[in-house]
Amino acid sequence: MPSTTTPVSIRRITDDSASDAEDLLAVEEPLEIVVVARARGAEGRAERRLGITMRTPGNDRDLAIGLLFAEGIITGAADVVSVEEGDGPSGTLVRVALRDEVTVDLGRTERALAVANASCGVCGKASIDVASFAPPSPLVRGAPRLAPRVVHGLAACLRDAQAVFGRTGGLHAAALFDAGGALADLREDVGRHNAVDKLVGAALLAGRLPDPGAVLMVSGRAGFELVQKALRASIPVMVAVGAPSSLAAELAAAHGMTLVGFARDGRFNVYAGRERVAVPAEAAS
Amino acid sequence: MPSTTTPVSIRRITDDSASDAEDLLAVEEPLEIVVVARARGAEGRAERRLGITMRTPGNDRDLAIGLLFAEGIITGAADVVSVEEGDGPSGTLVRVALRDEVTVDLGRTERALAVANASCGVCGKASIDVASFAPPSPLVRGAPRLAPRVVHGLAACLRDAQAVFGRTGGLHAAALFDAGGALADLREDVGRHNAVDKLVGAALLAGRLPDPGAVLMVSGRAGFELVQKALRASIPVMVAVGAPSSLAAELAAAHGMTLVGFARDGRFNVYAGRERVAVPAEAAS
Repeated sequence: MPSTTTPVSIRRITDDSASDAEDLLAVEEPLEIVVVARARGAEGRAERRLGITMRTPGNDRDLAIGLLFAEGIITGAADVVSVEEGDGPSGTLVRVALRDEVTVDLGRTERALAVANASCGVCGKASIDVASFAPPSPLVRGAPRLAPRVVHGLAACLRDAQAVFGRTGGLHAAALFDAGGALADLREDVGRHNAVDKLVGAALLAGRLPDPGAVLMVSGRAGFELVQKALRASIPVMVAVGAPSSLAAELAAAHGMTLVGFARDGRFNVYAGRERVAVPAEAAS
Repeated sequence: MPSTTTPVSIRRITDDSASDAEDLLAVEEPLEIVVVARARGAEGRAERRLGITMRTPGNDRDLAIGLLFAEGIITGAADVVSVEEGDGPSGTLVRVALRDEVTVDLGRTERALAVANASCGVCGKASIDVASFAPPSPLVRGAPRLAPRVVHGLAACLRDAQAVFGRTGGLHAAALFDAGGALADLREDVGRHNAVDKLVGAALLAGRLPDPGAVLMVSGRAGFELVQKALRASIPVMVAVGAPSSLAAELAAAHGMTLVGFARDGRFNVYAGRERVAVPAEAAS
């Protein structure tokens, strides 16, 4: 398991003291992703470098699969023949070989990957068009049904499970829960999109997605790209510790997804899909 | 002034209550950037659509200028003939006309913009190469010299000045201070890179940068892209409320920049360039 933190020597300063100390920082390193696939209209499969992502090392295969899935290059783990990790010119490399039946428009794919993410300084028009796509498996209306105490518990569970977070304060987390609040899996990364891609990639490889009862919890804010990723994975409920953006709430509402924000300290706000959240027993009585 | 927040109807749920309420969300909308410039080897200037960025409306001209500067397309406000705001096919559009003497490799630029930002799911190799660039104006060693009480005060000042932040909880802030802790300017955005680009763009247009005494404060984490942007603007000190990443600390150290993290509650950590931070009087005596 590669190290997700690295020690640094720092000076710690308060009102009246200065001391030298050792601290841990979240590691951020390049990962190169290579796809072996058949190009549209071509014979045989060819290897193509898709790009480099900056990520916290660990679960790199999950990250590659989650990213290819989020970008629509694969529709699930069944499209994948093999996922190998190795050394690349810039550091770690993951090579994903796809089934012969899967054809990839590589030029378009490279461009889509380059402009995929709206947290870019500048992204392509593609990102906004993507915002209008429908979940591959339509979400089941009204299911799962969540008790407020379950939602209250998610943030605490996420925090407890985030061993690394406590050490660096620098890692975002994403976790999958069932509708009863049981933790299914958790991934961390210095990038919050990466944490979700790692989580979804791992769940696809393990056959745990799609799951009409899945609940996605994220440690930070709910931007529209994270709602996109959840919709792509047909996850019906997303809960964020932080604030949603306006576009995230619009996108969730448009697709019948439940979006919860500010889930901490025993309270939360429902921004879309409120029919999946039960009214507290005390309030209903 | 366009609205940076939008009202939404939410359900607010606690342990024992559920109520309907109005909430405000940070707005996230597309901005299209068009450059009018002479292509390398071509006669006359042509208009070229560079890309679309998702941002919180407001200070869009600052954002366009800051972004073009961060990407090395312009070297300062002197390269800019005009900056106009108008309506584009996807919403707001900013058109930046450059001096005839400035030639732009538009193909390379478009690609650079598309892959510019390492918080992308996948970015190009470009981002990592960029990490090794030197500040255009070398940083002055040991200057400015900051008193710890000044650093303590920055976070409080940023918070007080962030009127919008208190309303939505969803906006990142970036602010420029002088070495005495006086606030020079502040910008907000749902994207933390945008907040820095808006701030730097405004400072360039106002002739306030480069400034060997400038201190940049950011409300969130210090990723390496923000250190890159600060170095590009020859800002010698960056202070973050949150954690730096390993690459951010490495990059700052390599260029003699001072990087402070976790600046809150009367304490902070110095990750690089500690010679610019004075030892507290009580600790020195």
